[in-house]
Amino acid sequence: MRIAVDADGGEFAPHEIIKGAIQAAQEYKVDIALVGKKTLLHVVAGKHLKNLNLTIIGTSQTIGFHEHPMEAVQAKPRSSIVVGINLVRDGKADAFVSAGNTGAVLCAALLSLGKIKGIERPALGSIINLIPSAPALLIDAGANADCRPSHLVQFAQLGNIYAKHVLSIESPCIGLLSNGEEETKGNRLVQKSHQLLKKSSLDFIGNIEGNDIAQRTADVIVTDGFTGNIVIKTVEGLGDSFIKLRHALSSAYHLQGRALLADVGLGFMVKGMDYREYGGACLLGVKGTVIVSHGRSQAKAIKNAIGLAKRTAERGICQLISDANHEQEV
Amino acid sequence: MRIAVDADGGEFAPHEIIKGAIQAAQEYKVDIALVGKKTLLHVVAGKHLKNLNLTIIGTSQTIGFHEHPMEAVQAKPRSSIVVGINLVRDGKADAFVSAGNTGAVLCAALLSLGKIKGIERPALGSIINLIPSAPALLIDAGANADCRPSHLVQFAQLGNIYAKHVLSIESPCIGLLSNGEEETKGNRLVQKSHQLLKKSSLDFIGNIEGNDIAQRTADVIVTDGFTGNIVIKTVEGLGDSFIKLRHALSSAYHLQGRALLADVGLGFMVKGMDYREYGGACLLGVKGTVIVSHGRSQAKAIKNAIGLAKRTAERGICQLISDANHEQEV
Repeated sequence: MRIAVDADGGEFAPHEIIKGAIQAAQEYKVDIALVGKKTLLHVVAGKHLKNLNLTIIGTSQTIGFHEHPMEAVQAKPRSSIVVGINLVRDGKADAFVSAGNTGAVLCAALLSLGKIKGIERPALGSIINLIPSAPALLIDAGANADCRPSHLVQFAQLGNIYAKHVLSIESPCIGLLSNGEEETKGNRLVQKSHQLLKKSSLDFIGNIEGNDIAQRTADVIVTDGFTGNIVIKTVEGLGDSFIKLRHALSSAYHLQGRALLADVGLGFMVKGMDYREYGGACLLGVKGTVIVSHGRSQAKAIKNAIGLAKRTAERGICQLISDANHEQEV
Repeated sequence: MRIAVDADGGEFAPHEIIKGAIQAAQEYKVDIALVGKKTLLHVVAGKHLKNLNLTIIGTSQTIGFHEHPMEAVQAKPRSSIVVGINLVRDGKADAFVSAGNTGAVLCAALLSLGKIKGIERPALGSIINLIPSAPALLIDAGANADCRPSHLVQFAQLGNIYAKHVLSIESPCIGLLSNGEEETKGNRLVQKSHQLLKKSSLDFIGNIEGNDIAQRTADVIVTDGFTGNIVIKTVEGLGDSFIKLRHALSSAYHLQGRALLADVGLGFMVKGMDYREYGGACLLGVKGTVIVSHGRSQAKAIKNAIGLAKRTAERGICQLISDANHEQEV
């Protein structure tokens, strides 16, 4: 298993990316292809080249955070994002992990890897992990700001496969995020999607609301990429504030007995709200495994993203999605 | 100042509603008109009728949570929601507070009070209070699931007036909730709204993201009612979980010194995520003060909602909105 990692992408590139990649190489026993500016990478990662299965793929262009995704991808074929995605396309890597310009990663994946046959719109599946041993998947976490009802149905199907095979949920139940439980609630998109999902073969439990996210009512939370992205970042933002406050609290005294138990619960939830823990979102529906990490990812987030990439590639998610679509057509 | 309170609305009606109303009558020195089933109300509130300025307005119909709003309002003119709203219309109450069927309250307000001249779509403004002494307003919290760009611009104007006069923010800054900071980000609705807001006379700071909610980047957070409702309930749901965990933690030991300080911060934030504290959302743009409370409201939430109703009515928000619209036309 070989994972290509974008060493040029993210606020803390390249140092934190390389640190995370080295940790992942050790912990997950994967080969790593670090994609980025050659000279810099050699200096930073050089001493690990012999001990770990670490290779360096030199690039000469960089796509910044504020560049227009499609224009940047087309203008910069020698950027880490395009080169990394192409490694997956050419079978030289099993997955690509990037904390760079998300839009550019999505564009490069669409252009270079292409969509799996039958998929209208690839979507980002993001793991939400607020309760011990019960992760849920939110899809779409931000790939498609404007959606049609058929897209949301396909997001549900993609999420179903991912929840089953990567999160190991035997028969995932699917909830449609809305502003009310009743099937008459929702915007036009959600109302129409609800009717289509009811007719599908999925275990559709109906509309769920914002408060169901913390209550973990559904295994797969289906929503458009605009709403999904806002929800994910709202949870993250609150998590950040809690981490700061809780850190101040914990460092001020020692916990014992019942207090310790409660603190473990609080700690788990705060951890679940932390993007550093789940590492990244998986782009589902393209011909290859692509993990998009948070732009602020440091070593731990990158290490976890590489772990997620490994798990996703091992389970053969692309093939499973392709098979499921083939069955539907037959 | 006289506030009409829906004693039939909400999961904990009538007992908790009456309890909250009595507390509010004492604390805020307001007259209360309890609207609901007469016999029951007399039994429950009877002993307070003399001491407090409490009157009972009997009704004979009830609108349930799952009834279709418009149909229910038209079919049940003697329900607490319709009767309560009509008290405001007829000048017999200065505001109406309900924890009942939100859709029905909105319909009744539109039908009976009507929109302020120039307002396209009244919207729900909900207070978000995560940082001490720095409340923010999210608008629309759920009145309009499908919106046009001109609606969002008007929500910004309504929010601006409310933030200035009820939250006492001298010159409120307005953020547009989106899935990215750049003005090219967002769904079509947000992209078009962004361009209109840029041209407005408001202090528009551009797009804000989900994580900006905890960071309190904007005084007024503008969004469509579908997204807004989901965001508000996501925050609430996380708040509920934290309250449970924190309660277990606090009760297990005594806090001292630095720990106490950190716990106060944590406590404030958790409190800010709790709908019981802010009491309700204000329907802005109709000719009258209407506060919609959470369906699960208990005494404390109702008391706070009545306090908010009083503050909103005192500041003359409806007149201020009307004046602002008149100025724009001139």
